[in-house]
Amino acid sequence: MKIDVLTLFPEMFEGVFNASILGKAKEKGLVTPQAINFRAYSGNKHNTVDDYPYGGGGGMVLKPEPVFAAVEDLKLDEAIKPRVILLCPQGAQFTQQKAEELAKEEHIVLICGHYEGYDERIREHLVTDELSIGDYVLTGGEIPAMVIIDSVVRLLPGVLGNETSAVTDSYSTGLLEHPHYTRPAEFRGWAVPDVLISGHHANIEVWRREQSLIRTQERRPDLLESAELTDKERRWLTARRKQRAPQ
Amino acid sequence: MKIDVLTLFPEMFEGVFNASILGKAKEKGLVTPQAINFRAYSGNKHNTVDDYPYGGGGGMVLKPEPVFAAVEDLKLDEAIKPRVILLCPQGAQFTQQKAEELAKEEHIVLICGHYEGYDERIREHLVTDELSIGDYVLTGGEIPAMVIIDSVVRLLPGVLGNETSAVTDSYSTGLLEHPHYTRPAEFRGWAVPDVLISGHHANIEVWRREQSLIRTQERRPDLLESAELTDKERRWLTARRKQRAPQ
Repeated sequence: MKIDVLTLFPEMFEGVFNASILGKAKEKGLVTPQAINFRAYSGNKHNTVDDYPYGGGGGMVLKPEPVFAAVEDLKLDEAIKPRVILLCPQGAQFTQQKAEELAKEEHIVLICGHYEGYDERIREHLVTDELSIGDYVLTGGEIPAMVIIDSVVRLLPGVLGNETSAVTDSYSTGLLEHPHYTRPAEFRGWAVPDVLISGHHANIEVWRREQSLIRTQERRPDLLESAELTDKERRWLTARRKQRAPQ
Repeated sequence: MKIDVLTLFPEMFEGVFNASILGKAKEKGLVTPQAINFRAYSGNKHNTVDDYPYGGGGGMVLKPEPVFAAVEDLKLDEAIKPRVILLCPQGAQFTQQKAEELAKEEHIVLICGHYEGYDERIREHLVTDELSIGDYVLTGGEIPAMVIIDSVVRLLPGVLGNETSAVTDSYSTGLLEHPHYTRPAEFRGWAVPDVLISGHHANIEVWRREQSLIRTQERRPDLLESAELTDKERRWLTARRKQRAPQ
């Protein structure tokens, strides 16, 4: 997969592109990530990429020319039709489903604004997707682009080993994970639950499922609506919720 | 503000700590960010920080000792009571409200797992907060830690200039931003809306508010519930929604 990031701060990506899973995927040739400074496409001698907004008001607006020119210089292959993604607070919420969708692409382009707004013509005539990673304010699209790259690349075939992929399989249940414990069996007086050391696999499975249900009910009850639960589990959760409700 | 990140991949943070707003805040002495490799605290000669889970199953689990030892070596000032934040999918959703809360702290510590799960005793006895930046799967807590650091640091007094802070003021309305336009007035045949070049400020304000309402209704109708709207605007949006509903 080819990944091109258009940014005014390409140096922000160096550490992330070369470390850990993404670094290994790059070494194996499974992904070719590139951060491109679109200031090089300003087309003016002062290298200006933003300007005051029409209609007045504070803040600067990213001009259309440099962003269009930078994307066009990628010589996009029309047969492949790359996804051109704008990172912005006005975008659709990025989800795991969107990550899976993007992981099927051969080429994605990510456009990162920084402080500024985007000239609307970039949205209307250049991009295929507008994405937001959450309802919080950031100084630019760079870290959101890293979020998207990380979540997409780990889904590419050959990137994760079997061992690491197993860890995240539990997401597919739609519930939060049960607690994990490893050695030592006792740490500063805090012991691992007996059931986990019992060697009784059926009991361990029951305990883990129950812990997963409890944790999801307490922390993210919204996830229970779409989780795959048995009728017995639904009744148990309902009874538990009533019991815990303030009198 | 002191920010300590415990991670197995400190090199991922170099670019982010030194670029843009965060780099400038660091230069001005407004924030002291540090990435610490907690592998140095493994306490064993193979520098192992993870181990197999009790009870079986795939994946590795981060051992409690190295994480406890690394946090304790920060010599936390009990009078300040630093926030110790675990980045994990089971955490509470990170929001702008949480960013504002964290921006009041003098010292925050962020713990990043990577592939592995955390030994439950870390959650129970070491951390003050568990946070998740969204419902998507990432390979580690490093990029989520960057999200939190970026959103918190930009809120610290003196970090943003007046010009850049003005851009994001519009978030306080609870609506998505209206479209922005800058020069050229015509780009490849696509013109800036007449109203924005009219110089008629009252009309511009009306247009922007209307565009903001339309965009929010079309992309993030959930935000309208808590947005500050006039009765007239609510009626207008209801009529608009009915008109657009499929027959």
